[in-house]
Amino acid sequence: MAETARQIADDLRSRITSGELDAGDRLPGEPALVTKYGVAKETARRALTLLVTEGLAVRKRGSGTYVRDFRPIRRVANRRLAQDGWGAGRSIWGADLGDRQLSVVDLKVSETAPPSQVARSLDLGEAESVIVRSRRFVVEGEPVQMATSYLPAELVRESAIAQPDTGPGGTYARLADLGLAPVRFTEELRARMPSPAESDLLALSEGTPVVEICRTAFTKEGRPIEVNQMLLDAGVYVLEYHLDS
Amino acid sequence: MAETARQIADDLRSRITSGELDAGDRLPGEPALVTKYGVAKETARRALTLLVTEGLAVRKRGSGTYVRDFRPIRRVANRRLAQDGWGAGRSIWGADLGDRQLSVVDLKVSETAPPSQVARSLDLGEAESVIVRSRRFVVEGEPVQMATSYLPAELVRESAIAQPDTGPGGTYARLADLGLAPVRFTEELRARMPSPAESDLLALSEGTPVVEICRTAFTKEGRPIEVNQMLLDAGVYVLEYHLDS
Repeated sequence: MAETARQIADDLRSRITSGELDAGDRLPGEPALVTKYGVAKETARRALTLLVTEGLAVRKRGSGTYVRDFRPIRRVANRRLAQDGWGAGRSIWGADLGDRQLSVVDLKVSETAPPSQVARSLDLGEAESVIVRSRRFVVEGEPVQMATSYLPAELVRESAIAQPDTGPGGTYARLADLGLAPVRFTEELRARMPSPAESDLLALSEGTPVVEICRTAFTKEGRPIEVNQMLLDAGVYVLEYHLDS
Repeated sequence: MAETARQIADDLRSRITSGELDAGDRLPGEPALVTKYGVAKETARRALTLLVTEGLAVRKRGSGTYVRDFRPIRRVANRRLAQDGWGAGRSIWGADLGDRQLSVVDLKVSETAPPSQVARSLDLGEAESVIVRSRRFVVEGEPVQMATSYLPAELVRESAIAQPDTGPGGTYARLADLGLAPVRFTEELRARMPSPAESDLLALSEGTPVVEICRTAFTKEGRPIEVNQMLLDAGVYVLEYHLDS
């Protein structure tokens, strides 16, 4: 029986990957699958759930199951962090999105004691505080990412980095103004299932994982100047890195 | 009620992240949670399931739920692809694993027509075939990754790349012997839930996502020389990239 749900899912999957069923198309419903494969309604439901869980399909309440149609965001790490982007006053998101609409919501800026892991990454002493910038990014109406940046308060407290609006080129341009331009970055990635709270904040479909990216930015002297903890809806992102041997 | 399961999960999660509950420790069982929180058995079970789904805990049949204890594999893309590693005859896995035991299983080598996406990535014409090397990697008894490499058959057919044993330094060292050393790489990452077949092959715990990495390797002339499609157990990997601005 479980095998039957798999086989139905395999059939539908190959119709999606071949392009026969296109993004946004409605998949056959449970009654149609019951008729076509001669299976129980529960088996048909299980087959559709498998595709939702793989991120290939989404359920719309009261309407059916559809081939997922959100155009993926291609995040090219090297391009977005290139100085000729943010140095020219552009947001580092411009490189990812082209002309798609981005909004930043729930922006909070505060000064506080850093979490212990962030303190270690930034080489901060016991008494040193950080400026924390947290926000969610919404693309074409879908929340796609949460991000929390930490910077040494001592260094950036008097700059626009401690204000809601960081100005043209954002945080990295302001760091450059302070003689602290980031020139080297480390990104650490993990993928996992979200906690229920994360699932709510990113409005994740059932069975969609998240990617955590922890980026540390370093000045040319090798000083860690920012830690940015990002949480991405894995269903909407393709992450691209370019490397030399 | 759902809120209660979340709160219990929150409590347990903070005991794990604080280190009070260590890797390999047994979590309180359903009866203990029922007593402590005054909830139904089903609620206690749901709380534990949330932690399993986040990859923080694993269920052992008939024994209980434990804090996940597999030491993560830190895959540093830049280091593993550095020529001074494989150029000296070492496997690119050496950089990831230190002294942990790696075995390669289910190795298959064949010559065949490429999937259309691979043909495009490798700039191959209609009639050109590829050497395909597929295998699974097992670390300390756990399958952690499946990988399938494709290389233009025309160029590598006569080399050890078409043999099960590629010799010291592996495929990249043999490409260098042929004057086709890879010097530049693109890695494209996606995270998603596995298909049932993938879940079986990687022996994934319930609720564990996979990371797909598609790597293309280029020679110094810019010729694409290998496409490697990898599928990683997201629960065991930390992926690290170093970038310059």
